[in-house]
Amino acid sequence: MASADIPDIVIGRLPIYLRTLNCMLAEGKEITASQELADRLGMSSAQIRKDLSHFGEFGKQGTGYETRYLRDQLRKILRVDREWDVALVGAGELGHALAHYGHFDRSGFHIVAVFDHDPRKIGTKMGRFQILDSATIPTVIQEMGIQLAIIAVPADSAQQVADTLIEAGIRAILNYAPTTLNVPPGVRVQYIDPVVYLQRMTYYL
Amino acid sequence: MASADIPDIVIGRLPIYLRTLNCMLAEGKEITASQELADRLGMSSAQIRKDLSHFGEFGKQGTGYETRYLRDQLRKILRVDREWDVALVGAGELGHALAHYGHFDRSGFHIVAVFDHDPRKIGTKMGRFQILDSATIPTVIQEMGIQLAIIAVPADSAQQVADTLIEAGIRAILNYAPTTLNVPPGVRVQYIDPVVYLQRMTYYL
Repeated sequence: MASADIPDIVIGRLPIYLRTLNCMLAEGKEITASQELADRLGMSSAQIRKDLSHFGEFGKQGTGYETRYLRDQLRKILRVDREWDVALVGAGELGHALAHYGHFDRSGFHIVAVFDHDPRKIGTKMGRFQILDSATIPTVIQEMGIQLAIIAVPADSAQQVADTLIEAGIRAILNYAPTTLNVPPGVRVQYIDPVVYLQRMTYYL
Repeated sequence: MASADIPDIVIGRLPIYLRTLNCMLAEGKEITASQELADRLGMSSAQIRKDLSHFGEFGKQGTGYETRYLRDQLRKILRVDREWDVALVGAGELGHALAHYGHFDRSGFHIVAVFDHDPRKIGTKMGRFQILDSATIPTVIQEMGIQLAIIAVPADSAQQVADTLIEAGIRAILNYAPTTLNVPPGVRVQYIDPVVYLQRMTYYL
């Protein structure tokens, strides 16, 4: 499987293709085509074919793709043909919603530990989780061998939480705190700040 | 202010610059430079200067930017030097977290109506909001002149909700449902699907 030379923007589109293929399979579509994917996604079929061509040949000219085969290949490429454990830091309103977000489990991402530094929350139950003391992040992450973490703490403590997580072995962070994190090379961060997305749209209104 | 010819990817970076400038102001930094912004964001200062140059001159060569002035200009460019009303559809766990997310109000985005189609929820209170019947979306959106909406419903009802919102006058949608929406030209959509972000990182692990 190719890797280092593929632009990150291409990698970023693969999960969207995967999601759409899963949706097609749920509808019973066993065969699809780049044009059909393109129509659903509002993009060009040439772009989709070009993106996929980085990883090999997935269909025959004129006959389209076997939906399930392409879906399974994308799962392998994205390394989501396995299950992933995820640590969640922050047990506020957002952390609560994330801990109960069924789409994670259905997609093979399992929150296995929830941390907070608030003494009033530590040890209490949040749904099926018992909230752990943030002070135990290093030992818990290391013992469980967790590589993925979600940060759902206020912006002013996000960097410190990230530093602790990375020191403990976390290599990929989904950051909900509205701030940019400084991380060492080799650690990935993705950002979800809904205000940023809204501001990107108000420009056009 | 320039508009149509500026790449959307540039527009997408402006909210990040704005967020960082706000942070600098909170720290009391009255003067900054593209290099300082670049260091905080892990990008090149040339990229930042090029992005900003689309909109005019904001600083003098060698003396940097007045933080507040640049911040205020970015607010004007992004049209967030005013307040925006936002409709929220979906009063589940996620909708609940979004309705109470303080960062929206602090950024000038005010959720003013929350809708759900579940008869057990309609009319009940969710924090400071009384949950409205989704059937009233057309009248409420039109009467209040709301242009922005957040969709936090399951994937299989998101398209129908989007159609109703757009018909009622919504021109920009922040979609938390894990599905791609088909919208007419002139309507903007941004997507927040945390699974997509996680999958984009597992590729590299």
